[in-house]
Amino acid sequence: MKKAIFSTEISLLRRTIQRLLRRRADDNLTKILRKTHPADVALLMRGFANSDQKTIFNLCPTFNHKAKVLEELDEALIENMLIDESSINISKMFLYLDTNDQAAIIGMFPEEKQKEILQKIEVEDLEDVEEIMSYPDDSAGSIMTKETFTLNQNTSVRDSLKQLQAFPENDKIFYVYVLDDKEKLMGVLSLRTLATSKNTNKLKDIMITDIHAAKSETDQEEVATTVAQYNYLALPVVNRENKFLGIVTIDDVVDIIREEASEDFLQMAGVGKDREILLKSPIENAQSRAPWIFASLIGGICAASIISYFDHLLKEMIVLASFIPVIIGIGGNIGTQSSTIIVRGLATGRVDVANTVPLIIKEIAVGGILGALYGLLVGFASELITGNELENLGLVVGLSIACSMTIATAVGASVPIILQKLNFDPAISTGPFVTTAIDILGVALYFIIASSILL
Amino acid sequence: MKKAIFSTEISLLRRTIQRLLRRRADDNLTKILRKTHPADVALLMRGFANSDQKTIFNLCPTFNHKAKVLEELDEALIENMLIDESSINISKMFLYLDTNDQAAIIGMFPEEKQKEILQKIEVEDLEDVEEIMSYPDDSAGSIMTKETFTLNQNTSVRDSLKQLQAFPENDKIFYVYVLDDKEKLMGVLSLRTLATSKNTNKLKDIMITDIHAAKSETDQEEVATTVAQYNYLALPVVNRENKFLGIVTIDDVVDIIREEASEDFLQMAGVGKDREILLKSPIENAQSRAPWIFASLIGGICAASIISYFDHLLKEMIVLASFIPVIIGIGGNIGTQSSTIIVRGLATGRVDVANTVPLIIKEIAVGGILGALYGLLVGFASELITGNELENLGLVVGLSIACSMTIATAVGASVPIILQKLNFDPAISTGPFVTTAIDILGVALYFIIASSILL
Repeated sequence: MKKAIFSTEISLLRRTIQRLLRRRADDNLTKILRKTHPADVALLMRGFANSDQKTIFNLCPTFNHKAKVLEELDEALIENMLIDESSINISKMFLYLDTNDQAAIIGMFPEEKQKEILQKIEVEDLEDVEEIMSYPDDSAGSIMTKETFTLNQNTSVRDSLKQLQAFPENDKIFYVYVLDDKEKLMGVLSLRTLATSKNTNKLKDIMITDIHAAKSETDQEEVATTVAQYNYLALPVVNRENKFLGIVTIDDVVDIIREEASEDFLQMAGVGKDREILLKSPIENAQSRAPWIFASLIGGICAASIISYFDHLLKEMIVLASFIPVIIGIGGNIGTQSSTIIVRGLATGRVDVANTVPLIIKEIAVGGILGALYGLLVGFASELITGNELENLGLVVGLSIACSMTIATAVGASVPIILQKLNFDPAISTGPFVTTAIDILGVALYFIIASSILL
Repeated sequence: MKKAIFSTEISLLRRTIQRLLRRRADDNLTKILRKTHPADVALLMRGFANSDQKTIFNLCPTFNHKAKVLEELDEALIENMLIDESSINISKMFLYLDTNDQAAIIGMFPEEKQKEILQKIEVEDLEDVEEIMSYPDDSAGSIMTKETFTLNQNTSVRDSLKQLQAFPENDKIFYVYVLDDKEKLMGVLSLRTLATSKNTNKLKDIMITDIHAAKSETDQEEVATTVAQYNYLALPVVNRENKFLGIVTIDDVVDIIREEASEDFLQMAGVGKDREILLKSPIENAQSRAPWIFASLIGGICAASIISYFDHLLKEMIVLASFIPVIIGIGGNIGTQSSTIIVRGLATGRVDVANTVPLIIKEIAVGGILGALYGLLVGFASELITGNELENLGLVVGLSIACSMTIATAVGASVPIILQKLNFDPAISTGPFVTTAIDILGVALYFIIASSILL
């Protein structure tokens, strides 16, 4: 186990590598890479230019080291590192990778190259890799590891310990999965129980039988929620006939939770769901963001039409124009608050989809309270700023603020809930959608209130 | 181990409990609670009214069951469940809790009650609980568990296995921590290595010595990042003299990662950082959200003043008012995209604080590309909508959109980076702050461009 390093040391190491790259001091680089934890190498590579990344990867001392770097590397970089690599070299790295990592990496290549690599994979791994590749993306089957320790329920404790000894070192073995003759999952056993039970006991007498398993098609987010909720270290994956297929381990669950949170963040802001957007070029970046900006364009054009419609009102009372930004801005802010609370609540299971009406009512209550408060404040402020230029202006502005804030909470809270009920991801672009809707509603409300009070 | 249940079954169970609560069928309720996994009980309780929550908690069959429910319950509810409970009963539940959970719960009470409870705690736990309570909130020390398995480095494998047998069942024992005579951390050993090594070996001969440990004051977020990056199952915590204090386990890290993501979500939207906001009353809820709405108010008043300043321009060309919403709306959207990407990148370590200039330049490039695209689109659209009412209107609107989008990306990307460099949480209210800044800049730009082209 290479020593892992702290973030301050990472910057130091980055500068050293930068210097050595400039000097093309390949031997020194290899020496440094040999001493660096592969997870740190993967982290460091993010900051370098494409050609430097390749140099670093190629200078990693062994196939094993390269494999461990691949395990931790961002998808966008993996493809780049391996695209010119021969299938034979790739298969040599694969010797050191779990079958689920092999499957994930092969899945990144075009079909031609996939076939080529699959031909070079160790025969005993091939079946597992092909099985994992056959499950849908983001399902339990696609993320499970097959490298786990199973035993028949009739094995004795003594024989189990012997088999454990013969099994290759793997610190992810937390439990022993106990199967029947048809490979159906019958029970589970902690290593501790195994190590401390009588040698002559059979596994079926000491195993826990009341266990929770995922189906191969279960969504990875559900797997993660289950593992987190019940504090499991691993969750077994079975097929419809309860045949044991593999396990999802908690360290992969940690990655899933981080990834899903990142995706939700980006999706809410309307950036697409590409977690690796920071590694992409400005053009690719603009491409994934452009569609969601379009929502603002449509909303803006609607708002413009509404304002044009009240042209006559504006002409008479030009001061009304000054308060357009505050009305839509304040509404947008409180609406985003509401939708963020709900989106996150849905993701963490704090919002119960079957019982959302009280939640929406509560949000509207919050909107009413803050609307009254800020309506008063902005109403008075508008009177002060304009110096009584227009009678009742404060009333109009204040009332519009109060109404638009209340409506904004209703819209902000409802949109993600409706998306969820329609089986869409509630995070998808909730942000731009909600603010745009509130822009339109806010402007319309403002001018309707103004014309009924002032005319 | 009680069987954990799926989400569909949860709704069914909720309805059953609701019915039994209405009928005050306490015996039946206890029967159901006995069969339900404590994590599920905790999850279910969220949806009930305060008094029902208490009834459910009180009907849990044993102190052990109550303790396990407390372990999984939201903070806001724990206080409520225990506030009327006698210290003696609390201490009976505490018998079944790890010392870090005990410390966390005691920390929720006022000092008087804290002392009372501490007096009733088991003597052997007391010291540990008081130690954990002495570490700052959210530090490795405050979240570590002391219930772990340590052995002296001179112990033989045979004796180690015997001691493991005598140690109370705990499925969180992944590693054996090996200490010297002064309790300094010398190495670590997997259970597998222990179970498969020669009986006469000493631990110091088979342990791994190259290990990573957190200090007691290390921030929990750094602990979580480390565990996630290196795929550890637990991280030992030591003091400045390398004395072993306890471990942070990966299941707690999972909770930390979820909590920190939730906090970032809420903070970005300016909702404060209370993850349990959904459990709070509308008034409490409004209180944590009000301050951040204030930003919009200030921004709105600035924007109003700017627009008033260009009064003369607007009077002549009233149509200009119609495009205020689209200019600030589109700028706000792209600015939020930029700040979300950066905030999330900072949280996951994808953004390197030492090297942010290229990032900001890239964001500005994206702003320029999308600004040119949408400037053209909205420019033409404005000409179409207004039917050439005003010469050069399209040019003014298009140019304003292009400039405000470019500036919005610069602001959106810079604000979180500046916050981070000033040692603030980059997520704090980035959303309201960025959109408000863009409102002001957008309006100012628009009218400056309009007056220089049109007048």
